[in-house]
Order: sequence, then C-alpha cells, then structure tokens
Amino acid sequence: MGVVVNLDEGRSKKPSVDRLIELVENDMKGVNDVIVRHMQSPVTLIPQLAGHLVASGGKRLRPMLTLGSARLCSYSGDRHIALAACVEFIHTATLLHDDVVDESNLRRGEASANALFGNQASVLVGDFLFSRAFELMVEDGSLEVLKILSHASSVIAEGEVLQLMTTNDTETGEDTYLEVIKSKTAQLFAAACRIGPVIAERPRSEEEALESFGLNLGIAFQLIDDVLDYSAKQTTLGKTIGDDFKEGKISLPVILAFRRGDEADRKFWRRTMEDLEQGDGDLQHALELMTKHNALSDSVDRARHYGAIARDALGIFDDSPTKTAFNELIEFCIDRAY
Amino acid sequence: MGVVVNLDEGRSKKPSVDRLIELVENDMKGVNDVIVRHMQSPVTLIPQLAGHLVASGGKRLRPMLTLGSARLCSYSGDRHIALAACVEFIHTATLLHDDVVDESNLRRGEASANALFGNQASVLVGDFLFSRAFELMVEDGSLEVLKILSHASSVIAEGEVLQLMTTNDTETGEDTYLEVIKSKTAQLFAAACRIGPVIAERPRSEEEALESFGLNLGIAFQLIDDVLDYSAKQTTLGKTIGDDFKEGKISLPVILAFRRGDEADRKFWRRTMEDLEQGDGDLQHALELMTKHNALSDSVDRARHYGAIARDALGIFDDSPTKTAFNELIEFCIDRAY
Repeated sequence: MGVVVNLDEGRSKKPSVDRLIELVENDMKGVNDVIVRHMQSPVTLIPQLAGHLVASGGKRLRPMLTLGSARLCSYSGDRHIALAACVEFIHTATLLHDDVVDESNLRRGEASANALFGNQASVLVGDFLFSRAFELMVEDGSLEVLKILSHASSVIAEGEVLQLMTTNDTETGEDTYLEVIKSKTAQLFAAACRIGPVIAERPRSEEEALESFGLNLGIAFQLIDDVLDYSAKQTTLGKTIGDDFKEGKISLPVILAFRRGDEADRKFWRRTMEDLEQGDGDLQHALELMTKHNALSDSVDRARHYGAIARDALGIFDDSPTKTAFNELIEFCIDRAY
Repeated sequence: MGVVVNLDEGRSKKPSVDRLIELVENDMKGVNDVIVRHMQSPVTLIPQLAGHLVASGGKRLRPMLTLGSARLCSYSGDRHIALAACVEFIHTATLLHDDVVDESNLRRGEASANALFGNQASVLVGDFLFSRAFELMVEDGSLEVLKILSHASSVIAEGEVLQLMTTNDTETGEDTYLEVIKSKTAQLFAAACRIGPVIAERPRSEEEALESFGLNLGIAFQLIDDVLDYSAKQTTLGKTIGDDFKEGKISLPVILAFRRGDEADRKFWRRTMEDLEQGDGDLQHALELMTKHNALSDSVDRARHYGAIARDALGIFDDSPTKTAFNELIEFCIDRAY
C-alpha cells in the first residue's frame, strides 16, 4: 500500500512567501531606497549601524504587508512606499531595543547590533529610526496613518513591558502570553495591513478585514516563532535552539508543559525558568517534557486557529493574485514549524 | 570705602525661575493632569516607573517654555496644555534612555529609574512615553506641531549618538561639542518655544524669534550644566561633583583645559578621560587645571554669549510680565553657576 512520494514535488508544493515577494518586488525596491535615504546622517555611526541592519535584514515581512494590502485595495498612488518604510523603521527600532533588553548576541543567526556596536548605540539609533519614521509619516501628511502607527507603537511598548514582567514567572497563563504577543508582535502586523485600505480610501469594512488579517497572522507568526525556538527545524534556519529557555522566557510551549505536568515537572520549570539554574541536559529534558505533553504540536494547533481567522477575514475580498499570496503567507507562517 | 552688603537683600535679587513658575502655575496643573492621565496602563510597571519620574521631577522647565511662549503670544485656547505634556514626555523618554546609555545611578540626586527598575524597563518605558507623546500630538491634530517635534526627536537622537562617539575622545573640539549640546539639549528647548506662536497662529517672525530664544537658552543651559559638574555649587543642589569626569565625557571645561594646557596636562587628560585610568586626587587635579586655565569661568562666558542672543531674540515682543520672566530665566540659567 506504499505510496511513492516525489520529494521534490512535495517540496515545491510547500506554501511559500515567494508569491508575495514577486508581486511587490518593484515596490519593495522603492521601499529599500527610502530606507537607505532616510538613514543618512552626518553622524557616521548611524548609517553604519543602520547599514548593518539592512544588510542582515530579514524578509521585510511587515513592509510587504503594507505593500500587499495597498495592492489588494487597488491603490494606485505611491504613498504606500514611504509608509511601508515607516513600518520597517518602527520594527527595526523595536528590534534594536529588544536585543538590548534581552541581552541577545545573535539576531537571525548573525551578531546582533548591540553585540557589534554596543547597547548604547543600539538604544540611541533605535530612537533615531523611530523618530525618522514619524518624520516620514508627517511628510506623508495623513493624521489617520499617524494615529494608527503612534497607537501601535505605544501598544508595542506596553507589550514589551508586560513581557518583561512575565519573564521568569512560571505562573504566567496563556491569556497573559496571548496579550503579550498580540501587543508586541501582532499589533504592528495589523497596523501595517491597515495602511493599504486607509490610503486607498476603501470602506471601513475592508480596513477592519485587513486589520483582522494582520492581527491574527501576527499572533500565528509569533506562536510559531516561539515553537521554533524549541524545534530542531530552527537549526536549519541558522538560528540557535533554546534561546528562550536560557532567558527563562515564558512562551506557550512552556506554559502548556508546566500546566500539564506533575509537581516534579513544575519543580523543574521553576528551577530552570525562575531561578535560571540550568545545567547540562536541562534543555534536553525540557524538550522531552514538551514532547510528552504535546506542548509544541498543540502550540502549532493554536497558531492554526488564528491562521483560520486571518483567512476568513480576507473572505470579503474578490479573488486576486494578492489574495492568493496573502492566503499562502498564512500557510507559510504556520508551515515554518515543520 | 567699605560697602555694607545686605546678604539677604542680595540673595532676593538673584534672578529666579519663580516669576515664570507663578505665571504659568494654573496651566502647569493642567499639564500635570495630562501627564498622570496618559501614563496610565494596565501594565502596572509603567505607571509605577512613570510615577517615580513625576515624583522626582525637576522644575519642568521645558513644558514651562511651551506654556510661557503660548502666553507671550496671547494664545487663548487650551491646546498648549497637552502639547506641553508632549514636550515633557519626550524629555522624560530621553532622560530614561540617557541614564541607560550613561549607566548613571543618580538623577537629580536621587536613585535613577534604571538603578531602581533596571535598564530593560527604562528602555521600554522610554519607548512607551515617546509613543504616547506622538499619540497626544495626533489627538491635537496639527501636522505642523508633529513636524516640529518629530524633527526635534530625530535631531536629539543624532546628538546623543554624536556625543557617544566623542566620549573619551580628547581630540573633540569646541565646535563638535557645540553641535552635540545644540542637538541633544537646545533642540527641544527651541521646539518647546516654537509651539506657542504656531498654535497662536502668529507671524513667522515671532515663531523664529521664539525658536531662537529657546535654542540659545538651551545652549547656555547645557553649558552651565556642564560647568556645574565641576563646581562646588553642585553639591548644594544635591548632585555629585565629577560625574562627567568619571565617565570621560568631553565637555567644554575639559576641551578648554586640554587646549590651553601643556603636554603634561594633555597626558593627564588622555590618561583620565580616554583610558579612564583615574586614581585618588585626579578629580582634584582636573579642577586645578581648569582653574589655572580659566576653563570654568570662560565656559560661563560662552554661556553668556548665547544668553545675550536669546535676550535679543525676544526684542521684537512688547514688554509684558511673560517677557520679563523669560529674560529673568536666561539670567537664572547662567547665574546657577554661582
């Protein structure tokens, strides 16, 4: 009864972000131009550090959401280019401050900015990028966009503080965790997606739909990110495994394994995550407990739930290549776990 | 030929900020209300840390400038209240990040926020306050004000990075130092003062005049601040002496003493400021070199120069209690050195 699976074919069918990348390729060149131009400063450390960030840049998922949402709404101007750059500036500023707060030395498998340039420069260049984002928005001139992104920024900061308060606290429940990832990650996804319908002056229903798409995609994205931190898959992405464990970050896999475990398990989690007393074999034991309690696979299931909401939010839009690409993006974000 | 000086009378004649405080007293109550209201967050660490900042707050000089400039321009609405709070939020966010960058444990003679709450919370609550400032400006709805304050914020960040690059570098010249203090301090003074004429819709000449008043007052203010760090007067203000020396911060007194000194002096400055090799008696020796080369008194003279420009900038305004109070403020900022 064996079925011969063509592995290559199987692989090519995996959901990918490539379709979206291709659709917004030209616009993204414009975004990159704006980014490079607005990082200039006579203070040489700023373009240096910013250049490092651009060179080691990820997929630019967030500005792609702004470009895609503008496209989905048949927007025909060019304001989405600079506004997508604003979204990336805010994201980059957050990353810079995040790495200082987490004391991370790696970012996307490479030395992080704070490791290379020091915490001080990371704090200040983050502030610079953040201010530049607001200058760019002011140039664009839409108070509505300014409202969306200033609100997102303060919610992100609140989420980061909340995360700081829950670090090393094994009592943290799933709802608080959800609140953290909604604020610190999903809020900017939602804001990035809302810009398209706003500048295209589409009806409120489309604005709400794209905001919901972004929010739920962002939640799913962060859930999977947190799963990947305990997944062997991670090592193939050039990232290290167990960073969250080392920091005592309370993510959903930990919450589920803690709640589903017995007193001995909880003692283990308290020692390793609260007291940060970690020895050889502890990460391995953590992984075993997570496997035993289905903590990783159930976290992926939770992500699927939010992915489904994101997909339904797009339901009101007519079929189009962009809609297909957005739907595939949802699958891609979840599928990364395997 | 002796003249009997009545010391008490002499003291009461010293220029003071009290006149300005009195004039804007009612408005300042409104500002404090806005500040407290907008620091609220379900994330308890935020109002906690923010409350600490308010309780240990200084004179609120910057929002006072916004209130005073609105008054000088006969502004009759209430937008200056919330906008003055924005100015204070941006200033507080900068202070929080500054203390992290400087690794300061004291702020206005009390434990600094980062010493009490940790660097991580200081970075993130700074981001929160900064974002809240922009949310408040968006509520106010003036793109012109948003432009002034977003530009000021990015210039401040540039100035802070430039300062970071000059720390421990005895080659730093007076012009670079001036560039740093113009950006990191005077820019926000200038922006705070410009808000009044902008919301009062006064002619461009008054906007320029108040911007120039703020900018030059800010430069004088920072020059004196840097002098005070080497002045015994400092100890009576509840601050410690020699903090800048310990950090190797290149302020004007150091620049002058370095340039006016001989090779032995320069060797001393390089050892203490560049290599940060400091032992008993080094601060004392630094003070002696500064006295020998008139580095402190000439820095005060430089401050007087900018104070004079600030005073002349106000020349186009009719006499009024606010103008008198602004002029006295210039004197007060410089007079603090004695």
